Amino acid sequence: MAISAATDLILKAKEKKGLTFAQIAEAAGCSEVYCTAAIYGQQTLNEQQAKAVTDLLELSSEVETKLKTIPFRGTNFSMPPTDPTIYRLYELVLVYGDAIKALIHEKFGDGIMSAIDFKMDLDKEENPHGDRVVITLNGKFLQYKTF
Amino acid sequence: MAISAATDLILKAKEKKGLTFAQIAEAAGCSEVYCTAAIYGQQTLNEQQAKAVTDLLELSSEVETKLKTIPFRGTNFSMPPTDPTIYRLYELVLVYGDAIKALIHEKFGDGIMSAIDFKMDLDKEENPHGDRVVITLNGKFLQYKTF
Amino acid sequence: MAISAATDLILKAKEKKGLTFAQIAEAAGCSEVYCTAAIYGQQTLNEQQAKAVTDLLELSSEVETKLKTIPFRGTNFSMPPTDPTIYRLYELVLVYGDAIKALIHEKFGDGIMSAIDFKMDLDKEENPHGDRVVITLNGKFLQYKTF
Amino acid sequence: MAISAATDLILKAKEKKGLTFAQIAEAAGCSEVYCTAAIYGQQTLNEQQAKAVTDLLELSSEVETKLKTIPFRGTNFSMPPTDPTIYRLYELVLVYGDAIKALIHEKFGDGIMSAIDFKMDLDKEENPHGDRVVITLNGKFLQYKTF
Amino acid sequence: MAISAATDLILKAKEKKGLTFAQIAEAAGCSEVYCTAAIYGQQTLNEQQAKAVTDLLELSSEVETKLKTIPFRGTNFSMPPTDPTIYRLYELVLVYGDAIKALIHEKFGDGIMSAIDFKMDLDKEENPHGDRVVITLNGKFLQYKTF
Amino acid sequence: MAISAATDLILKAKEKKGLTFAQIAEAAGCSEVYCTAAIYGQQTLNEQQAKAVTDLLELSSEVETKLKTIPFRGTNFSMPPTDPTIYRLYELVLVYGDAIKALIHEKFGDGIMSAIDFKMDLDKEENPHGDRVVITLNGKFLQYKTF
Amino acid sequence: MAISAATDLILKAKEKKGLTFAQIAEAAGCSEVYCTAAIYGQQTLNEQQAKAVTDLLELSSEVETKLKTIPFRGTNFSMPPTDPTIYRLYELVLVYGDAIKALIHEKFGDGIMSAIDFKMDLDKEENPHGDRVVITLNGKFLQYKTF
Amino acid sequence: MAISAATDLILKAKEKKGLTFAQIAEAAGCSEVYCTAAIYGQQTLNEQQAKAVTDLLELSSEVETKLKTIPFRGTNFSMPPTDPTIYRLYELVLVYGDAIKALIHEKFGDGIMSAIDFKMDLDKEENPHGDRVVITLNGKFLQYKTF
Amino acid sequence: MAISAATDLILKAKEKKGLTFAQIAEAAGCSEVYCTAAIYGQQTLNEQQAKAVTDLLELSSEVETKLKTIPFRGTNFSMPPTDPTIYRLYELVLVYGDAIKALIHEKFGDGIMSAIDFKMDLDKEENPHGDRVVITLNGKFLQYKTF
Amino acid sequence: MAISAATDLILKAKEKKGLTFAQIAEAAGCSEVYCTAAIYGQQTLNEQQAKAVTDLLELSSEVETKLKTIPFRGTNFSMPPTDPTIYRLYELVLVYGDAIKALIHEKFGDGIMSAIDFKMDLDKEENPHGDRVVITLNGKFLQYKTF
Repeated sequence: MAISAATDLILKAKEKKGLTFAQIAEAAGCSEVYCTAAIYGQQTLNEQQAKAVTDLLELSSEVETKLKTIPFRGTNFSMPPTDPTIYRLYELVLVYGDAIKALIHEKFGDGIMSAIDFKMDLDKEENPHGDRVVITLNGKFLQYKTF
Repeated sequence: MAISAATDLILKAKEKKGLTFAQIAEAAGCSEVYCTAAIYGQQTLNEQQAKAVTDLLELSSEVETKLKTIPFRGTNFSMPPTDPTIYRLYELVLVYGDAIKALIHEKFGDGIMSAIDFKMDLDKEENPHGDRVVITLNGKFLQYKTF
Repeated sequence: MAISAATDLILKAKEKKGLTFAQIAEAAGCSEVYCTAAIYGQQTLNEQQAKAVTDLLELSSEVETKLKTIPFRGTNFSMPPTDPTIYRLYELVLVYGDAIKALIHEKFGDGIMSAIDFKMDLDKEENPHGDRVVITLNGKFLQYKTF
Repeated sequence: MAISAATDLILKAKEKKGLTFAQIAEAAGCSEVYCTAAIYGQQTLNEQQAKAVTDLLELSSEVETKLKTIPFRGTNFSMPPTDPTIYRLYELVLVYGDAIKALIHEKFGDGIMSAIDFKMDLDKEENPHGDRVVITLNGKFLQYKTF
Repeated sequence: MAISAATDLILKAKEKKGLTFAQIAEAAGCSEVYCTAAIYGQQTLNEQQAKAVTDLLELSSEVETKLKTIPFRGTNFSMPPTDPTIYRLYELVLVYGDAIKALIHEKFGDGIMSAIDFKMDLDKEENPHGDRVVITLNGKFLQYKTF
Repeated sequence: MAISAATDLILKAKEKKGLTFAQIAEAAGCSEVYCTAAIYGQQTLNEQQAKAVTDLLELSSEVETKLKTIPFRGTNFSMPPTDPTIYRLYELVLVYGDAIKALIHEKFGDGIMSAIDFKMDLDKEENPHGDRVVITLNGKFLQYKTF
Repeated sequence: MAISAATDLILKAKEKKGLTFAQIAEAAGCSEVYCTAAIYGQQTLNEQQAKAVTDLLELSSEVETKLKTIPFRGTNFSMPPTDPTIYRLYELVLVYGDAIKALIHEKFGDGIMSAIDFKMDLDKEENPHGDRVVITLNGKFLQYKTF
Repeated sequence: MAISAATDLILKAKEKKGLTFAQIAEAAGCSEVYCTAAIYGQQTLNEQQAKAVTDLLELSSEVETKLKTIPFRGTNFSMPPTDPTIYRLYELVLVYGDAIKALIHEKFGDGIMSAIDFKMDLDKEENPHGDRVVITLNGKFLQYKTF
Repeated sequence: MAISAATDLILKAKEKKGLTFAQIAEAAGCSEVYCTAAIYGQQTLNEQQAKAVTDLLELSSEVETKLKTIPFRGTNFSMPPTDPTIYRLYELVLVYGDAIKALIHEKFGDGIMSAIDFKMDLDKEENPHGDRVVITLNGKFLQYKTF
Repeated sequence: MAISAATDLILKAKEKKGLTFAQIAEAAGCSEVYCTAAIYGQQTLNEQQAKAVTDLLELSSEVETKLKTIPFRGTNFSMPPTDPTIYRLYELVLVYGDAIKALIHEKFGDGIMSAIDFKMDLDKEENPHGDRVVITLNGKFLQYKTF
């Protein structure tokens, strides 16, 4: 079973049972973004988390195994992303990339925001002029070490 | 004068005067990220903001004009970004792109997070295990309209 | 069922029943362009619209489900488009892209024409020197917000 | 003188004199979109039009010559466009390309909308919910000839 | 049935019956190049032509349908072509492209040779120093319209 | 002097003297297409031809030298060509490439049309429905040798 | 049967019978390189050669047919080649390409080494410091014809 | 001085003095191909060789230094090569690449032909049917080591 | 059986038996990195090694054959690698590539580190501040030979 | 002054003074690889290190400033690298990339070897069969954090 097949089975079961990602994440005991990324084959769940998800969705142990397997990341779509919802994130890198780099260097020194020791939230901010998507990226600063 | 030449002059003057992006942004009366993006030729300052910045940095009216000119965005570097600090943002799109898409659709419906009606913050979160970079993306949800 | 399989089934049923896109769109209660885009897996129909289409075409509920599913857009063909009919649109972006940008900025300020809060018509203009294709793009102007 | 140098001189003179593209186009006696495309080196002006533009803007005969020279089109920016204002047009090709192809074929037969025997308008539609950009593409249908 | 499957069936039947493209084209009542392009899924045959071809080759109505379907053109091979026979044509564009452009502009004005209102012949010119391939491209000149 | 600089000087002199490519070719004693290709730095002129061209146009011996120098071909524009006049040729390769390959193989056997032992004409065919561009490609068939 | 399937069957039969490419080539009556290229679907064998190969390897007439079919060349792997053994050849083009071009032009004039009227040998040169691979390319010089 | 500038100076001096690559190589005491590659900035000459070349051509010590400097190889042209003379070599890799790989593995085992412990000759073979270019590649076989 | 299928069978058997790469490598009598590369279809095992691995894992002789077959290397993933664990290696080439080149040239002369006469180790270095990955590359220096 | 200009000045001064990278690194008090990477504009030196380097090489304060400036990394050459010495490193990623990924995951869990908290050595290992290049990569393991 390819990981994409597991993703399909999970999404269908989720649809059928009328569950949200938040509800699945709660069962797994991790955040909504993390759990969704795992369902899309980009993160791994541990023993207990994978079991909780497949129990909740009544899916096979094969799906459970896939959720625990370390994936080859980043292969679900090609770059630049053709889908407008994802493209906007890519565009933000194009437009704000060097401003972010300049500010990280000014505030922290020479280094990066880790994409590994990292967490992300995605929230809905209600607003009379139109609701807003709020995404928070939180990564450890890693300093280039002199050697 | 190309916009990149204006960027260079601003960064040199900033260095020489020992100013931070925050201080320049304060003079301009806009946020740190927005002002830095403008300095890198990705956003525009209005009359008053541009004057405040060039007065503070003692730069020519030609630089002031550049800061007010609507730019051709996204040409400072090629994709995928070769610089590790910017690449990590690109990697986040690769790894979390479809999770973000799925969550936006579940929480808001079919549409996107605007990259135009949008704001961004970048903060330093102090942490005994290593300081953290916190970037907040806040964009209006735009629903695909049926027509 | 992949969305492309649903597209194929719809196009075959449409062929067999001798229906036009306009007739299907009328049943769905949306415009011809929107409905055609939905059939090609680029837009979503709501409950009622999807049912109307599959009832008209006597297709399965699986097709109906596909028409309601938010798609991963933009993957039907690669860019630059090799098909001449689509390539001409791409060529218009190449040739008129910066004129359009300049005029939007002059008339509206710094921002974009939304591709989300957007509608499109495609009409036939009869003409003794040869009929003409008239495509009208109508998108909300979105102003870059200072923040 | 490269055509891009002529473009720069025209845009500066236009800025200095406080003229709009519409005013320059009126002097040239052609449409706003056509004239703007010529200024960006994508269309040619005839003897009289070129003279009218350079007279109005008080520019040299070298600029006038450039405006009359048939250009190598499509080289002002690379594809996919990095600038968000132009990218949205590219995205419309991605999302609506095959719907447009299908509708042209259904309404006209096998062929294309000409990008040569073609005209375009760009208008501002005032709207209480936010003004809208209206772009009208009007091209002759060209039928594939059997031979 | 994909168009490539129809192509395969036609080529096999042609092989088995020992027919040439010229003979099939004669049955269809169109030129050899046009008919061959249709067999490769790049042009469409009308009702009568498609029937003549499938009758001659004793093929199913499904193949007949494919020959009448307007194709998504240009997807049989990728560019630059890796096959030497096709590559030489690509090389001619590289080497003679701007000479052709300059001569079209000098002889006709600003515009293009249509690839739609177009016909092509391919002939064998016998020659004691080695036979020669003679390809004639004949397309309507389309003038850029001022608007 | 780069070859592109020589091209520019020749085109300016040609413009100033009001000469056509045909007239320059006549002076050089070669065909119009060949001579134009040489002017664009894609073919070489011999001693006598180069002298005739630069004498006619009253250009320096440096230009004469450039016209005799074997060029690095194919670098005047990138592929796919963005210019519509040249793109149409590229599109013909996409649409008719495998038909041409199939017909060459059927008529001549396994091999190619040479792009080296090759000549090309470009003519204007007057036509009441619109003049037509006629381009004739004539290349020696080269058979793949068994070894 | 795709040509790659025929290649697989031939290589398996060759393995099973313990034959070398040289032995198969001897049966076919052509050179080792030519025969190997034919097995990989890059050259064609004639009636007699194809029969000899499939008789020797006890393979079906379908494989025989494939060996006689003119292939679409160059599609077995993408460029740049990822395999180190093939990459070294690509690297030689990168490093020695313009030296080869300069020497061909100096020794022969303006033209190319034909890749069609061409033969190649690959030999093992025994050497106490390590055996050496010797590849000889032998192609007819083709002069660019003035026309 | 960039290496390409040194190449230009050498080629001009060579032209002016009417020398061949063979004569320059003789002065340098290395082979014609090696010396030509060095002139194109792809190989290095030692102290004595560089001096011999610049003495013969009466060029500056700066050119001499460049000839001794280890270059960043492979940047004189992009791939695929647009020049037909170099493209034919690239095409040989496409068409014969896997045959060469298969024969090297059969004759030598798992490994490569070195492109470093390597030499190349380019000769003219006179032939009544047209002279032939003979290029001999001779590289040490390097076996993949088990570790 | 494709090599990727063999890889899958081996990884599943390894998982099921709870073996490490080190244990499999020990059975094969080669290093951990080499054996893992062979399992991923990038290196070959000899008769005895392949048998040891398939005996240990109780796999078929077809898998054994695959492990002995010289592969077409480098096709498991595309470049740049989308997976973050592999991307970091690619980034090291980007960031340290020319420093490594400069140091190899200074210490050894003009040449390369062989990727064929090469070995690699990957070790875990325990460290109170976080364990470290230590990868040692050890390749023979190959000097460019003058010829 | 661009960083590449600073690199050139440093390399020339190093050449003129006959210094090695090791000697410059000793003056700077950092490792040879780190110092060389800084000279190539890929790492930063601190106040004291930059001063030591420019004092040793008798270079201007402008060079000193460049050495302290955080660079936009990875822009010295394009990928895949055309230079053989650097290409071999790229090839190692292609050939050993997934083996390294598999071993890191087996030994450490899900995560990466940091390219930031990282050090590298390059040594010469003398060997009677040919000296060897030994490159040691040492990076902190970073575990993907569940969130």
